[in-house]
Amino acid sequence: MERIYTTQRWDMADLPLQETLFHNANGYLGVRGALEEGLPQGADTMRGTYINGFYELVPMKQAEKLTNVLEEKESMINVGDPQGLRIAVDGQWFHQLEGEMLSYRRSLDMDAGITSREMVWRSPKGHQVAISFRRLASFVLPEMFTIDCRVTALNFAGTVEVESTQLALVRNYADPNDPRLAHSSQCHLVPAGHVFKGDASYLSVTTRHSGLKLTGGVRHWTDLAPSAARWEYDPQEHQAAYRCTFHLEQGQSLRLVKYCVFADSRRSDDTLAHAMTAMEKGYGRMDWLYEQQRLELDGFWKNAGTCIQGDGEANLSMQFNLYQLFQSAGKDGLCSIAAKGLSGEGYEGHYFWDTEMYMMPFFTLTMPQLARKLLGYRYLTLPQARENARLLGHKKGALYPWRTITGQECSGYFPAGTAQYHIVGDIAYAVANYYIATDDRDYMIREGAEILLETARLWMEVGHEYQGSFRIHCVTGPDEYTCIVNNNYYTNACAQHNLRWAVRAMELLKQWGAYERWAARLQVEPGEAEAFAHAADIMFLPYDEALDINPQDDSFLEKPVWDFDATPPENHPLLLHYHPLQLYRYQVCKQADTVLAHVLFGQLERLETRRNSFAYYEKVTTHDSSLSNCIFCIDACRLGLRAKARSYFGDSIKTDLMNTHGNTKDGIHTANMGGCYLAVVSGFAGLELEENAIRLNPFLPEDWTGLSFRFQYHGSHLAFDMEGDGYTLKLESGRGVTVHTPEGQYQLEEPGQQLAGAVAGAVGQGG
Amino acid sequence: MERIYTTQRWDMADLPLQETLFHNANGYLGVRGALEEGLPQGADTMRGTYINGFYELVPMKQAEKLTNVLEEKESMINVGDPQGLRIAVDGQWFHQLEGEMLSYRRSLDMDAGITSREMVWRSPKGHQVAISFRRLASFVLPEMFTIDCRVTALNFAGTVEVESTQLALVRNYADPNDPRLAHSSQCHLVPAGHVFKGDASYLSVTTRHSGLKLTGGVRHWTDLAPSAARWEYDPQEHQAAYRCTFHLEQGQSLRLVKYCVFADSRRSDDTLAHAMTAMEKGYGRMDWLYEQQRLELDGFWKNAGTCIQGDGEANLSMQFNLYQLFQSAGKDGLCSIAAKGLSGEGYEGHYFWDTEMYMMPFFTLTMPQLARKLLGYRYLTLPQARENARLLGHKKGALYPWRTITGQECSGYFPAGTAQYHIVGDIAYAVANYYIATDDRDYMIREGAEILLETARLWMEVGHEYQGSFRIHCVTGPDEYTCIVNNNYYTNACAQHNLRWAVRAMELLKQWGAYERWAARLQVEPGEAEAFAHAADIMFLPYDEALDINPQDDSFLEKPVWDFDATPPENHPLLLHYHPLQLYRYQVCKQADTVLAHVLFGQLERLETRRNSFAYYEKVTTHDSSLSNCIFCIDACRLGLRAKARSYFGDSIKTDLMNTHGNTKDGIHTANMGGCYLAVVSGFAGLELEENAIRLNPFLPEDWTGLSFRFQYHGSHLAFDMEGDGYTLKLESGRGVTVHTPEGQYQLEEPGQQLAGAVAGAVGQGG
Repeated sequence: MERIYTTQRWDMADLPLQETLFHNANGYLGVRGALEEGLPQGADTMRGTYINGFYELVPMKQAEKLTNVLEEKESMINVGDPQGLRIAVDGQWFHQLEGEMLSYRRSLDMDAGITSREMVWRSPKGHQVAISFRRLASFVLPEMFTIDCRVTALNFAGTVEVESTQLALVRNYADPNDPRLAHSSQCHLVPAGHVFKGDASYLSVTTRHSGLKLTGGVRHWTDLAPSAARWEYDPQEHQAAYRCTFHLEQGQSLRLVKYCVFADSRRSDDTLAHAMTAMEKGYGRMDWLYEQQRLELDGFWKNAGTCIQGDGEANLSMQFNLYQLFQSAGKDGLCSIAAKGLSGEGYEGHYFWDTEMYMMPFFTLTMPQLARKLLGYRYLTLPQARENARLLGHKKGALYPWRTITGQECSGYFPAGTAQYHIVGDIAYAVANYYIATDDRDYMIREGAEILLETARLWMEVGHEYQGSFRIHCVTGPDEYTCIVNNNYYTNACAQHNLRWAVRAMELLKQWGAYERWAARLQVEPGEAEAFAHAADIMFLPYDEALDINPQDDSFLEKPVWDFDATPPENHPLLLHYHPLQLYRYQVCKQADTVLAHVLFGQLERLETRRNSFAYYEKVTTHDSSLSNCIFCIDACRLGLRAKARSYFGDSIKTDLMNTHGNTKDGIHTANMGGCYLAVVSGFAGLELEENAIRLNPFLPEDWTGLSFRFQYHGSHLAFDMEGDGYTLKLESGRGVTVHTPEGQYQLEEPGQQLAGAVAGAVGQGG
Repeated sequence: MERIYTTQRWDMADLPLQETLFHNANGYLGVRGALEEGLPQGADTMRGTYINGFYELVPMKQAEKLTNVLEEKESMINVGDPQGLRIAVDGQWFHQLEGEMLSYRRSLDMDAGITSREMVWRSPKGHQVAISFRRLASFVLPEMFTIDCRVTALNFAGTVEVESTQLALVRNYADPNDPRLAHSSQCHLVPAGHVFKGDASYLSVTTRHSGLKLTGGVRHWTDLAPSAARWEYDPQEHQAAYRCTFHLEQGQSLRLVKYCVFADSRRSDDTLAHAMTAMEKGYGRMDWLYEQQRLELDGFWKNAGTCIQGDGEANLSMQFNLYQLFQSAGKDGLCSIAAKGLSGEGYEGHYFWDTEMYMMPFFTLTMPQLARKLLGYRYLTLPQARENARLLGHKKGALYPWRTITGQECSGYFPAGTAQYHIVGDIAYAVANYYIATDDRDYMIREGAEILLETARLWMEVGHEYQGSFRIHCVTGPDEYTCIVNNNYYTNACAQHNLRWAVRAMELLKQWGAYERWAARLQVEPGEAEAFAHAADIMFLPYDEALDINPQDDSFLEKPVWDFDATPPENHPLLLHYHPLQLYRYQVCKQADTVLAHVLFGQLERLETRRNSFAYYEKVTTHDSSLSNCIFCIDACRLGLRAKARSYFGDSIKTDLMNTHGNTKDGIHTANMGGCYLAVVSGFAGLELEENAIRLNPFLPEDWTGLSFRFQYHGSHLAFDMEGDGYTLKLESGRGVTVHTPEGQYQLEEPGQQLAGAVAGAVGQGG
């Protein structure tokens, strides 16, 4: 299977979207796919380069001061522009909007880990030239981004001029009308030294307020000697421009590689030295970089490869999504995965619950070491979560912020931000899930149990016993169209799971002889575990007898249903067209909320209650969030609603590659990408992990011919393959695994052993 | 009875408070009692002059963009500084912080309508001089403010230099840490022309964004000729400084009057001409101004005089409060009464429900014509209230903004602002109450009925029928420590009253033959009145059987009670020390909420339920709002809890004069002032008005010897007098009145006739 996405469109309207789709990233840095030659003044472009976790502190003033609501947030900033590379043919500057484009092809090669733009262009004067750019953000040398350019004189002999620029002071993109983007465009950087060493330039900058430093370096390599003696350059403290002229015979090519490096002060004390070292490692070794890139991706696809047969479009989107997740994931434990990865400025580079609930399952199942790094980020920021809990008045426990970069709350509207206490349970869920999948006891002892304890403590602070059950008031569930409610079903279920896993972790630590020191360090009080267990046991989970459903919260069903018939399609997403109070007053959900709880904690309810709930929420959910369709898909799978499941998946899988939400230009939707993976693995394949076994309950959508993926469980590698009505699960390496399927319990003892099963019949098709 | 408040303190710490207590206002303009000679650099002063309803548009950016939440607000601005007047004695500039103060007395004479500062000062060189400033904001010439200064050489002969300034470009006061004040200090004005005509200067300015214009004029008068030929002055476009030297013999006095006028473009097309005309009317006529001022106040006290005997401090505070209400009230129908009147910048000069619920009863009972003007302001802004309703998604009806100057919403935090839908019912309540008290049919036909209709329509939009009752979701009641709740008791009771009065108004209009045209103009639909009546009939009013109380809202009682024991006194008001979400999660009330509903709509509940509710809410209310104690006082009166009533009144009455909330320096608390009046009249005297009768149920606190006040009902003037165990109610003029007392029903037929009664026994003392 070749994993290549290609387009031949080059109209202006499409370019911002292409900047996202063809961005290059490696988890550390990301460069949007802007045009090297630039765009005309005023054209819409988000010409950005980003470093994961590199931020500026920007004001987040409340319109009215609110006590303990922070008024400063972290915002991911555009760190420089290494992309500039202009080419002139006999004095005429190439631009794809001028002259005539004889052929055009822009590609993302997900096996090679490169993007490319290949063109045959006729200049206004008639010179025909082939120009290609190949770009890479290296997985093995994460500081490095390269542009590999080739120019071929097709119908003439003459000069080729090149001008390459490096800009240190760049602005962020802004859209004052979109709450998901920054309000105003600003340059957050000030020059902090420049070094021009031979033919390399290194420009350093610092942020104005966050005290971070960054050095960007650029150096050029060519396979032809310049016509003049050498490159001219025009160094300034905040930019460098290199100019050079070459002579080409007809048919002759020039290859020019622009090596760019970035080093930042969150990762190194001396960013200049760090940048120079990185440049040394990579400079002049383009072929080695290509080779390493492919090797890295070979490994990735081997472990993470997930293939849908019979639906090429869905399959290509799936490859794209998984590739983006890999590109986006911070791999150094200092950072996580932003809502838009490193592909754009939507949501300001913030990390949300998206990572833990939507993306972590993919990493946990396919790259557990990377999953541990991502969880490590949350452990690293546990002190800030404790501080945040204090701001909210909780004497104990940790409250993770709703959106953040280094751990401080960066949400400016607390009713739909900080009030989403469920993030605490979400992170605990990811910790438990990681442990269940990996049996990584070292992690549990060093980090996981502490997170479980501190989050459980928080629930004891937030909730209270009332009329014999444990209630949680004044929180917001995942559905942001209903804010500050009592006993949000999802939140309560999450809290229950969190409390139970805190108790479980303490049991495990006792079994492993690691409890005493740990408990002393964390000042665990006598009876604390019992109190957790009791609260979990009496957790209040809203249930409506008449409808036999779980209401989203205490008062959800008392509200009138939103008038969907009177809502024109252009008024979606509703949050951009209606006052929040109006949305809050009706039964209308932005996304899966109770349905998500049923997907995660299905065992809490009878199948009939879940089925009724699914049907109920389906009617009142707008799926205005990209985190919704995939969850409805999984629940539909679990309930045997095959046609529905397939339809929800179809909507979800295409979000970015088909730009179905219309805003992929601001960046990819990483949570949805993880959600699509979950839909396939947890939904269609019905994979669920337990501490000592895994469960499978697969079915294949009618229009697909097969589905296959690999995953890891307790260190063992397994391969799942489904075709037609049958499927196999093979133990490829590692120790034995117990597997439950609808047909019974199996034991895969030795590598090479496999079980074969028939696809379960649909329980029903209705809704 | 002499109504004079005096202080002899002049320490720096006291001055900001004195600026408030000794401010001069007349409902149109207000000048804080700053020191004419100024303060040292850096001293805390809010040296402000304000025009009621004169505002600038300032940004009110949300930290995260929220749809249909306005991002610009109106803010009352400091319009200029006419106060500057420095005096030098033989070359030494007078300042009360230098030299030696031999005597000092600062007074507010509420009979004369003037403030004064009288001093005997010894300069560092030993010159003794008597200096006095008398200030007035004219009630008959509202554009005019005067400073009448007298300087007497006591132990020397020599020169007296005077420097008088007029500044057009001034800044607003700011405190970035107090949500009740502006965040940053700015000058909102730009020069717009200056005219120096003879010895008068007129400086015009415009606001930067709101497009308003203002002209301030200054002219001086003296009873001595200057030593030099004439006044020198130094005119600039944004300021004028007048300098002059006089010669005084020992024992001789100089009298200098500074006449200041203001005219603004909300009231006149040509502000310069308007200012000049006002100056002409008043200049040189200081004695006439004093006389008119006293005449105006004679009338005021005659109608509004309210006297507490036996408690001098409370009585003085009562006089102060009523005087401030009169000073603060906009009298031109274009504006209303700001939360701080015209005495300071707290709450940015915004009008709240405070006017209708706390202050209007005073005006309705004592100055019905002025009450109609104040209600007229709400009629004037009905179109904006309709627009505001549309922003919130309501197809019909009017939603008055929570805080405003011209009618647009100026609340930056909607959960504790716009969500307080009860303001709609509050305004309707004031309309009904005005009609009940005055029988003003013309008002009802022209304005009142339309407000009642449009507000009733809003409730039909906001609420809905659920399980046989009318529910109102997602609103905030008066208690801002509990936001966005369902079925707030106060709101629902208010809405019920509003709906019933809309129906009643339609009946009245039909009786008066005014209905058809009115209904056609307002597109009243068939069945609309019936729908209002039905919604009112089935209005849901939360009731808890176990406690026999009315819960504040659907989920109030499910929350844990705030840990008051663990809350140190310095953490009050709680809103300045705890995150809103923390407050929302507990049973803790900022102010009377359900208790206020019981005061207004007591007939809805059994006495026992009200008694239980009072006891319940008393335990969970912090009275962090100055609108709370007075309401608890009235309810305590109604429930016969005399000792409690007296104690709540004691807390409330002293708020400003004794600065019990510590923030009177930012301005007076006009709502509390009205609330104190209500406590006396509605509480202690037990006065309640009905459409065809009035009710009295008086009692006298033990430490008082008497209580008396006058009021009007259906155009008749009545005088209430209570002494010891007996009271009288006398019809002084006008047509007959039916009176219900605990002893029976009486008819006062002719002027001069009176009824005498015994004070009712206390129903109980507990709580």
